[in-house]
Amino acid sequence: MITVALPKGALLGDSIALFRSLGLDFSGFLDKANRQLQISDPTGTAQALLVRAQDVPVYVEYGQAQVGIVGYDVLREKHPNVAHLADLGFGRCRLSVAVKASSPYRSALDLPAHSRVASKFVNCAKEYFQSIDLPVEIVPLYGSVELGPITGMSEAIVDLVSTGTTLRENNLIELEVLYQSTARLIAHPLSYRLNSDGLQPLVAQIRQQTAAAVAV
Amino acid sequence: MITVALPKGALLGDSIALFRSLGLDFSGFLDKANRQLQISDPTGTAQALLVRAQDVPVYVEYGQAQVGIVGYDVLREKHPNVAHLADLGFGRCRLSVAVKASSPYRSALDLPAHSRVASKFVNCAKEYFQSIDLPVEIVPLYGSVELGPITGMSEAIVDLVSTGTTLRENNLIELEVLYQSTARLIAHPLSYRLNSDGLQPLVAQIRQQTAAAVAV
Repeated sequence: MITVALPKGALLGDSIALFRSLGLDFSGFLDKANRQLQISDPTGTAQALLVRAQDVPVYVEYGQAQVGIVGYDVLREKHPNVAHLADLGFGRCRLSVAVKASSPYRSALDLPAHSRVASKFVNCAKEYFQSIDLPVEIVPLYGSVELGPITGMSEAIVDLVSTGTTLRENNLIELEVLYQSTARLIAHPLSYRLNSDGLQPLVAQIRQQTAAAVAV
Repeated sequence: MITVALPKGALLGDSIALFRSLGLDFSGFLDKANRQLQISDPTGTAQALLVRAQDVPVYVEYGQAQVGIVGYDVLREKHPNVAHLADLGFGRCRLSVAVKASSPYRSALDLPAHSRVASKFVNCAKEYFQSIDLPVEIVPLYGSVELGPITGMSEAIVDLVSTGTTLRENNLIELEVLYQSTARLIAHPLSYRLNSDGLQPLVAQIRQQTAAAVAV
Protein backbone atom coordinates (compact mmCIF):
# COMPACT_ATOMS: atom_id res chain seq x y z
CA MET A 1 0.00 0.00 0.00
CA ILE A 2 1.27 3.46 -0.94
CA THR A 3 1.68 5.98 1.88
CA VAL A 4 1.46 9.67 1.07
CA ALA A 5 2.82 12.42 3.37
CA LEU A 6 0.58 15.51 3.27
CA PRO A 7 1.56 18.91 4.73
CA LYS A 8 -0.57 20.68 7.34
CA GLY A 9 -1.41 24.26 6.53
CA ALA A 10 -1.70 26.22 3.31
CA LEU A 11 -1.07 23.34 0.86
CA LEU A 12 -3.42 20.79 2.46
CA GLY A 13 -6.66 21.66 0.65
CA ASP A 14 -5.14 21.60 -2.86
CA SER A 15 -3.15 18.44 -2.04
CA ILE A 16 -6.28 16.58 -0.99
CA ALA A 17 -8.14 17.85 -4.09
CA LEU A 18 -5.32 16.52 -6.28
CA PHE A 19 -5.54 13.01 -4.80
CA ARG A 20 -9.32 13.12 -4.95
CA SER A 21 -9.10 13.75 -8.70
CA LEU A 22 -7.11 10.47 -8.88
CA GLY A 23 -9.78 8.60 -6.91
CA LEU A 24 -8.00 8.70 -3.52
CA ASP A 25 -10.02 10.31 -0.74
CA PHE A 26 -8.13 11.77 2.24
CA SER A 27 -10.68 14.50 2.93
CA GLY A 28 -11.02 13.26 6.54
CA PHE A 29 -8.00 15.48 7.31
CA LEU A 30 -10.06 18.57 6.39
CA ASP A 31 -12.60 17.82 9.14
CA LYS A 32 -11.84 20.29 11.94
CA ALA A 33 -12.76 17.68 14.57
CA ASN A 34 -10.28 15.18 13.12
CA ARG A 35 -7.41 14.27 15.46
CA GLN A 36 -6.02 11.36 13.46
CA LEU A 37 -2.66 11.81 11.78
CA GLN A 38 -2.89 8.65 9.69
CA ILE A 39 -5.93 7.74 7.57
CA SER A 40 -6.66 5.23 4.82
CA ASP A 41 -8.42 5.94 1.58
CA PRO A 42 -11.91 4.28 1.76
CA THR A 43 -10.94 1.98 -1.14
CA GLY A 44 -8.03 0.70 0.97
CA THR A 45 -5.44 1.27 -1.78
CA ALA A 46 -3.46 4.06 -0.09
CA GLN A 47 -2.98 5.79 3.23
CA ALA A 48 -1.91 9.30 4.16
CA LEU A 49 0.07 10.88 6.99
CA LEU A 50 -0.72 14.43 8.11
CA VAL A 51 2.50 16.13 9.20
CA ARG A 52 4.14 19.55 9.44
CA ALA A 53 5.31 20.86 6.07
CA GLN A 54 8.97 20.69 7.18
CA ASP A 55 8.50 17.05 8.26
CA VAL A 56 7.13 15.83 4.89
CA PRO A 57 10.62 15.29 3.36
CA VAL A 58 11.74 13.51 6.55
CA TYR A 59 8.99 10.86 6.27
CA VAL A 60 9.75 10.46 2.56
CA GLU A 61 13.54 10.35 3.07
CA TYR A 62 13.18 7.57 5.65
CA GLY A 63 10.75 5.70 3.39
CA GLN A 64 7.79 5.85 5.81
CA ALA A 65 5.93 7.59 2.99
CA GLN A 66 6.75 6.76 -0.64
CA VAL A 67 5.51 10.13 -1.89
CA GLY A 68 4.82 13.52 -0.36
CA ILE A 69 3.73 17.04 -1.22
CA VAL A 70 5.79 19.94 0.05
CA GLY A 71 6.65 23.51 -0.88
CA TYR A 72 9.78 24.18 -2.93
CA ASP A 73 10.81 26.56 -0.10
CA VAL A 74 11.21 23.61 2.30
CA LEU A 75 13.27 21.68 -0.28
CA ARG A 76 15.54 24.68 -0.88
CA GLU A 77 16.05 25.26 2.84
CA LYS A 78 16.65 21.65 3.94
CA HIS A 79 18.10 19.89 0.85
CA PRO A 80 16.55 16.54 1.79
CA ASN A 81 17.61 13.42 -0.07
CA VAL A 82 14.38 12.89 -2.04
CA ALA A 83 13.44 12.69 -5.73
CA HIS A 84 11.72 15.82 -7.09
CA LEU A 85 9.05 14.51 -9.46
CA ALA A 86 6.62 17.28 -10.41
CA ASP A 87 5.78 20.95 -9.99
CA LEU A 88 2.13 20.85 -8.91
CA GLY A 89 1.52 24.52 -9.67
CA PHE A 90 -0.46 25.43 -6.55
CA GLY A 91 0.71 27.13 -3.34
CA ARG A 92 2.51 29.84 -5.28
CA CYS A 93 4.56 32.24 -3.17
CA ARG A 94 8.04 33.77 -3.18
CA LEU A 95 10.91 34.12 -0.76
CA SER A 96 11.77 37.79 -0.53
CA VAL A 97 13.95 40.32 1.22
CA ALA A 98 11.84 43.04 2.84
CA VAL A 99 12.56 46.16 4.87
CA LYS A 100 10.57 48.94 6.51
CA ALA A 101 8.99 51.20 3.91
CA SER A 102 10.39 54.13 5.91
CA SER A 103 13.98 52.85 5.61
CA PRO A 104 16.35 54.33 3.02
CA TYR A 105 17.00 50.91 1.43
CA ARG A 106 15.63 50.21 -2.06
CA SER A 107 17.73 47.16 -2.95
CA ALA A 108 19.44 44.43 -0.93
CA LEU A 109 22.83 45.93 -1.80
CA ASP A 110 21.82 49.18 -0.06
CA LEU A 111 21.80 47.35 3.29
CA PRO A 112 24.83 48.25 5.42
CA ALA A 113 27.38 45.47 5.92
CA HIS A 114 26.72 43.49 9.11
CA SER A 115 23.01 44.35 9.07
CA ARG A 116 20.77 41.96 10.93
CA VAL A 117 18.36 39.90 8.84
CA ALA A 118 15.60 37.96 10.65
CA SER A 119 14.39 34.78 8.97
CA LYS A 120 12.90 31.33 9.32
CA PHE A 121 14.91 30.43 6.20
CA VAL A 122 18.38 30.64 7.67
CA ASN A 123 20.14 28.65 4.96
CA CYS A 124 18.41 30.36 2.03
CA ALA A 125 19.08 33.79 3.54
CA LYS A 126 22.77 32.96 4.15
CA GLU A 127 23.22 31.65 0.60
CA TYR A 128 21.57 34.72 -0.89
CA PHE A 129 23.65 37.29 0.98
CA GLN A 130 26.81 35.31 0.24
CA SER A 131 25.87 35.36 -3.45
CA ILE A 132 25.75 39.18 -3.41
CA ASP A 133 28.88 39.24 -1.22
CA LEU A 134 27.22 41.20 1.60
CA PRO A 135 28.16 40.06 5.11
CA VAL A 136 25.05 40.06 7.32
CA GLU A 137 24.04 38.56 10.66
CA ILE A 138 21.12 36.16 10.29
CA VAL A 139 18.76 36.16 13.30
CA PRO A 140 16.89 32.82 13.29
CA LEU A 141 13.21 33.17 14.21
CA TYR A 142 10.37 30.61 14.27
CA GLY A 143 7.41 32.89 13.61
CA SER A 144 6.16 36.44 13.02
CA VAL A 145 9.38 37.48 11.33
CA GLU A 146 7.84 40.90 10.55
CA LEU A 147 8.40 41.82 14.21
CA GLY A 148 12.15 41.96 13.48
CA PRO A 149 12.13 45.35 11.71
CA ILE A 150 9.12 46.62 13.71
CA THR A 151 10.95 46.22 17.01
CA GLY A 152 14.23 47.37 15.50
CA MET A 153 15.90 44.00 16.10
CA SER A 154 16.77 43.61 12.42
CA GLU A 155 17.14 45.91 9.41
CA ALA A 156 15.60 43.37 7.04
CA ILE A 157 13.78 40.06 6.84
CA VAL A 158 13.83 37.14 4.43
CA ASP A 159 10.36 35.61 4.40
CA LEU A 160 7.68 33.98 2.25
CA VAL A 161 5.30 36.40 0.58
CA SER A 162 2.09 35.28 -1.12
CA THR A 163 -0.47 38.08 -1.29
CA GLY A 164 1.74 40.68 0.38
CA THR A 165 -0.93 41.55 2.97
CA THR A 166 1.32 40.85 5.98
CA LEU A 167 4.03 43.12 4.54
CA ARG A 168 1.54 45.93 3.82
CA GLU A 169 -0.11 45.66 7.24
CA ASN A 170 3.31 46.04 8.84
CA ASN A 171 4.58 48.85 6.57
CA LEU A 172 7.22 46.67 5.01
CA ILE A 173 8.25 46.64 1.33
CA GLU A 174 9.79 43.90 -0.78
CA LEU A 175 13.27 44.61 -2.15
CA GLU A 176 14.30 41.38 -3.86
CA VAL A 177 12.82 38.02 -4.75
CA LEU A 178 15.18 35.12 -3.93
CA TYR A 179 13.01 32.53 -5.71
CA GLN A 180 9.43 31.55 -6.55
CA SER A 181 7.96 28.57 -4.71
CA THR A 182 5.13 26.14 -5.56
CA ALA A 183 4.02 22.79 -4.20
CA ARG A 184 6.15 19.87 -5.39
CA LEU A 185 5.64 16.13 -5.58
CA ILE A 186 8.56 14.30 -3.99
CA ALA A 187 9.29 10.60 -3.66
CA HIS A 188 11.60 8.19 -1.89
CA PRO A 189 14.25 7.68 -4.62
CA LEU A 190 14.59 3.92 -4.23
CA SER A 191 10.84 3.27 -3.97
CA TYR A 192 10.31 5.25 -7.14
CA ARG A 193 13.04 3.45 -9.06
CA LEU A 194 11.84 0.03 -7.89
CA ASN A 195 8.20 0.97 -8.58
CA SER A 196 7.21 -0.34 -5.12
CA ASP A 197 3.48 -0.65 -4.63
CA GLY A 198 2.82 0.69 -8.14
CA LEU A 199 4.31 4.10 -7.40
CA GLN A 200 5.24 4.92 -11.01
CA PRO A 201 1.68 4.76 -12.44
CA LEU A 202 0.46 6.99 -9.57
CA VAL A 203 3.19 9.54 -10.27
CA ALA A 204 2.44 9.40 -14.02
CA GLN A 205 -1.24 10.09 -13.26
CA ILE A 206 -0.34 13.06 -11.04
CA ARG A 207 1.93 14.49 -13.74
CA GLN A 208 -0.83 14.17 -16.33
CA GLN A 209 -3.38 15.75 -13.98
CA THR A 210 -1.00 18.61 -13.21
CA ALA A 211 -0.10 19.21 -16.86
CA ALA A 212 -3.85 19.29 -17.68
CA ALA A 213 -4.48 21.80 -14.84
CA VAL A 214 -1.63 24.01 -16.03
CA ALA A 215 -2.94 23.91 -19.62
CA VAL A 216 -6.43 25.14 -18.58
CA MET B 1 9.55 51.79 29.03
CA ILE B 2 10.03 48.10 29.79
CA THR B 3 9.27 45.62 27.00
CA VAL B 4 8.23 42.11 27.94
CA ALA B 5 8.40 39.14 25.51
CA LEU B 6 5.47 36.74 26.06
CA PRO B 7 5.26 33.24 24.55
CA LYS B 8 2.32 32.16 22.38
CA GLY B 9 0.71 28.91 23.41
CA ALA B 10 0.49 27.00 26.68
CA LEU B 11 2.27 29.56 28.90
CA LEU B 12 0.44 32.68 27.69
CA GLY B 13 -2.55 32.65 30.06
CA ASP B 14 -0.49 32.24 33.24
CA SER B 15 2.09 34.78 32.00
CA ILE B 16 -0.58 37.43 31.46
CA ALA B 17 -2.14 36.61 34.87
CA LEU B 18 1.26 37.11 36.52
CA PHE B 19 1.73 40.57 35.00
CA ARG B 20 -1.89 41.47 35.81
CA SER B 21 -1.18 40.71 39.47
CA LEU B 22 1.60 43.34 39.24
CA GLY B 23 -0.76 45.90 37.72
CA LEU B 24 0.28 45.41 34.06
CA ASP B 25 -2.54 44.46 31.72
CA PHE B 26 -1.63 42.60 28.51
CA SER B 27 -4.90 40.66 28.33
CA GLY B 28 -5.52 42.03 24.81
CA PHE B 29 -3.36 39.12 23.59
CA LEU B 30 -5.97 36.65 24.90
CA ASP B 31 -8.66 38.10 22.64
CA LYS B 32 -9.07 35.59 19.79
CA ALA B 33 -9.72 38.41 17.31
CA ASN B 34 -6.45 40.13 18.25
CA ARG B 35 -3.90 40.32 15.41
CA GLN B 36 -1.47 42.73 17.08
CA LEU B 37 1.89 41.35 18.15
CA GLN B 38 2.86 44.42 20.18
CA ILE B 39 0.59 46.05 22.77
CA SER B 40 1.03 48.60 25.54
CA ASP B 41 -0.26 48.32 29.06
CA PRO B 42 -3.17 50.83 29.44
CA THR B 43 -1.14 52.73 32.09
CA GLY B 44 1.58 53.25 29.47
CA THR B 45 4.37 51.94 31.73
CA ALA B 46 5.22 48.79 29.79
CA GLN B 47 4.66 47.07 26.47
CA ALA B 48 4.59 43.42 25.48
CA LEU B 49 5.56 41.43 22.37
CA LEU B 50 3.68 38.24 21.51
CA VAL B 51 6.12 35.79 19.91
CA ARG B 52 6.71 32.05 19.46
CA ALA B 53 8.07 30.40 22.61
CA GLN B 54 11.40 29.65 20.88
CA ASP B 55 11.72 33.29 19.82
CA VAL B 56 11.33 34.75 23.35
CA PRO B 57 15.05 34.32 24.22
CA VAL B 58 16.03 35.83 20.84
CA TYR B 59 14.17 39.10 21.53
CA VAL B 60 15.64 39.18 25.05
CA GLU B 61 19.17 38.33 23.89
CA TYR B 62 19.12 41.16 21.33
CA GLY B 63 17.70 43.57 23.95
CA GLN B 64 14.42 44.24 22.07
CA ALA B 65 12.69 42.99 25.22
CA GLN B 66 14.30 43.49 28.63
CA VAL B 67 12.47 40.52 30.15
CA GLY B 68 10.65 37.48 28.87
CA ILE B 69 8.84 34.35 29.98
CA VAL B 70 9.83 31.03 28.45
CA GLY B 71 9.86 27.34 29.32
CA TYR B 72 13.02 25.82 30.79
CA ASP B 73 12.88 23.32 27.88
CA VAL B 74 13.62 26.11 25.37
CA LEU B 75 16.52 27.39 27.52
CA ARG B 76 17.99 23.87 27.77
CA GLU B 77 17.68 23.26 24.04
CA LYS B 78 19.00 26.62 22.77
CA HIS B 79 21.39 27.87 25.51
CA PRO B 80 20.63 31.53 24.76
CA ASN B 81 22.77 34.21 26.34
CA VAL B 82 20.19 35.53 28.84
CA ALA B 83 19.99 35.89 32.64
CA HIS B 84 17.77 33.27 34.33
CA LEU B 85 16.00 35.20 37.09
CA ALA B 86 13.13 33.14 38.53
CA ASP B 87 11.29 29.84 38.34
CA LEU B 88 7.65 30.91 37.92
CA GLY B 89 6.24 27.52 38.88
CA PHE B 90 3.59 27.22 36.16
CA GLY B 91 3.68 25.34 32.84
CA ARG B 92 5.04 22.22 34.49
CA CYS B 93 6.00 19.40 32.12
CA ARG B 94 8.89 17.03 31.56
CA LEU B 95 11.11 15.99 28.68
CA SER B 96 10.92 12.22 28.40
CA VAL B 97 12.04 9.25 26.35
CA ALA B 98 9.02 7.22 25.20
CA VAL B 99 8.55 4.06 23.14
CA LYS B 100 5.64 1.96 21.90
CA ALA B 101 4.00 0.11 24.81
CA SER B 102 4.19 -3.04 22.68
CA SER B 103 7.99 -2.73 22.32
CA PRO B 104 10.31 -4.87 24.48
CA TYR B 105 12.11 -1.76 25.86
CA ARG B 106 11.59 -0.81 29.50
CA SER B 107 14.53 1.59 29.95
CA ALA B 108 16.52 3.80 27.59
CA LEU B 109 19.49 1.44 27.91
CA ASP B 110 17.39 -1.39 26.45
CA LEU B 111 17.26 0.45 23.10
CA PRO B 112 19.54 -1.15 20.50
CA ALA B 113 22.60 0.86 19.50
CA HIS B 114 21.93 3.04 16.42
CA SER B 115 18.20 3.16 17.14
CA ARG B 116 16.37 6.11 15.64
CA VAL B 117 15.00 8.67 18.07
CA ALA B 118 12.57 11.31 16.72
CA SER B 119 12.54 14.65 18.53
CA LYS B 120 11.96 18.38 18.35
CA PHE B 121 14.65 18.66 21.06
CA VAL B 122 17.64 17.58 19.00
CA ASN B 123 20.31 18.98 21.33
CA CYS B 124 18.71 17.72 24.54
CA ALA B 125 18.20 14.26 23.02
CA LYS B 126 21.81 14.11 21.77
CA GLU B 127 23.20 15.17 25.15
CA TYR B 128 21.08 12.61 26.98
CA PHE B 129 22.06 9.63 24.82
CA GLN B 130 25.70 10.69 24.95
CA SER B 131 25.45 10.80 28.75
CA ILE B 132 24.31 7.15 28.83
CA ASP B 133 26.91 6.31 26.12
CA LEU B 134 24.32 4.93 23.68
CA PRO B 135 24.92 5.87 20.03
CA VAL B 136 21.56 6.73 18.41
CA GLU B 137 20.44 8.53 15.27
CA ILE B 138 18.33 11.59 16.08
CA VAL B 139 15.57 12.29 13.52
CA PRO B 140 14.68 16.00 13.78
CA LEU B 141 10.93 16.66 13.52
CA TYR B 142 8.89 19.86 13.91
CA GLY B 143 5.61 18.41 15.13
CA SER B 144 3.57 15.30 16.00
CA VAL B 145 6.67 13.41 17.12
CA GLU B 146 4.44 10.51 18.23
CA LEU B 147 4.10 9.56 14.55
CA GLY B 148 7.76 8.43 14.62
CA PRO B 149 7.16 5.12 16.44
CA ILE B 150 3.61 4.71 15.03
CA THR B 151 4.88 4.70 11.44
CA GLY B 152 7.97 2.69 12.38
CA MET B 153 10.33 5.54 11.44
CA SER B 154 11.89 5.60 14.91
CA GLU B 155 12.15 3.21 17.85
CA ALA B 156 11.78 6.00 20.40
CA ILE B 157 10.95 9.68 20.82
CA VAL B 158 12.19 12.42 23.14
CA ASP B 159 9.30 14.81 23.73
CA LEU B 160 7.56 17.03 26.27
CA VAL B 161 4.95 15.29 28.41
CA SER B 162 2.51 17.17 30.60
CA THR B 163 -0.65 15.14 31.29
CA GLY B 164 0.48 12.08 29.31
CA THR B 165 -2.73 12.00 27.26
CA THR B 166 -0.94 12.14 23.89
CA LEU B 167 1.29 9.22 24.88
CA ARG B 168 -1.67 7.14 26.09
CA GLU B 169 -3.77 7.91 23.00
CA ASN B 170 -0.91 6.68 20.82
CA ASN B 171 -0.04 3.59 22.92
CA LEU B 172 3.32 4.98 23.95
CA ILE B 173 4.95 4.65 27.38
CA GLU B 174 7.49 6.84 29.12
CA LEU B 175 10.84 5.21 29.87
CA GLU B 176 12.96 8.02 31.30
CA VAL B 177 12.60 11.64 32.36
CA LEU B 178 15.45 13.84 31.08
CA TYR B 179 14.37 16.86 33.15
CA GLN B 180 11.37 18.74 34.57
CA SER B 181 10.45 22.03 32.97
CA THR B 182 8.54 25.09 34.22
CA ALA B 183 8.13 28.67 33.00
CA ARG B 184 11.12 30.89 33.72
CA LEU B 185 11.66 34.62 33.92
CA ILE B 186 14.63 35.66 31.80
CA ALA B 187 16.25 39.05 31.25
CA HIS B 188 18.76 40.78 29.06
CA PRO B 189 21.89 40.52 31.26
CA LEU B 190 23.15 44.07 30.74
CA SER B 191 19.70 45.71 31.12
CA TYR B 192 19.22 43.86 34.39
CA ARG B 193 22.63 44.81 35.76
CA LEU B 194 22.20 48.47 34.74
CA ASN B 195 18.61 48.50 36.04
CA SER B 196 17.40 50.08 32.77
CA ASP B 197 13.85 51.39 32.95
CA GLY B 198 13.50 50.20 36.56
CA LEU B 199 13.88 46.54 35.65
CA GLN B 200 15.17 45.41 39.04
CA PRO B 201 12.08 46.47 41.07
CA LEU B 202 9.83 44.70 38.52
CA VAL B 203 11.88 41.52 38.79
CA ALA B 204 11.85 41.77 42.61
CA GLN B 205 8.04 42.07 42.52
CA ILE B 206 7.73 39.02 40.25
CA ARG B 207 9.98 37.00 42.53
CA GLN B 208 7.88 37.96 45.55
CA GLN B 209 4.66 37.14 43.74
CA THR B 210 6.03 33.80 42.61
CA ALA B 211 7.35 32.91 46.07
CA ALA B 212 3.91 33.76 47.52
CA ALA B 213 2.18 31.59 44.90
CA VAL B 214 4.52 28.68 45.60
CA ALA B 215 3.96 29.03 49.37
CA VAL B 216 0.15 28.83 48.97
